[in-house]
Amino acid sequence: MKARVTIMLKDGVLDPQGEAIRHALGGLGFSGVDGVRQGKVIELDLASVDADAAKAEVARMCEGLLANTVIEKYAVEIV
Amino acid sequence: MKARVTIMLKDGVLDPQGEAIRHALGGLGFSGVDGVRQGKVIELDLASVDADAAKAEVARMCEGLLANTVIEKYAVEIV
Repeated sequence: MKARVTIMLKDGVLDPQGEAIRHALGGLGFSGVDGVRQGKVIELDLASVDADAAKAEVARMCEGLLANTVIEKYAVEIV
Repeated sequence: MKARVTIMLKDGVLDPQGEAIRHALGGLGFSGVDGVRQGKVIELDLASVDADAAKAEVARMCEGLLANTVIEKYAVEIV
């Protein structure tokens, strides 16, 4: 079973990396980009066969290691 | 209009960051994780109102700046 975790900075947390991308896109002539946020995506191959149990375990992985929940939010999907 | 770009290393390209995560998860007692791949996700706020045109422009951004298409693959979705 495959799980995908998407980790983004929480709204309101400054994202200098996203801002740098926005600036670079403007420099390359891409106008009309009002904002950019960058985050991480982590794909996990899991031995588990129970989707609900897998989702709960991946959420525990996020809380314990993958995300910094002070400034980041995460979303788990089973794919 | 909002677009989300997901950038992952191509299959077969070594992913030491993902491997480090897999190792750390094992150390924390999460067994049953057979593989981990880490990538980037970039969310763009676009002024465009035409979904098809926006998707094509974001693909051009990926080719020109966001992704290293030698070793990375990207997927664009309009959200």
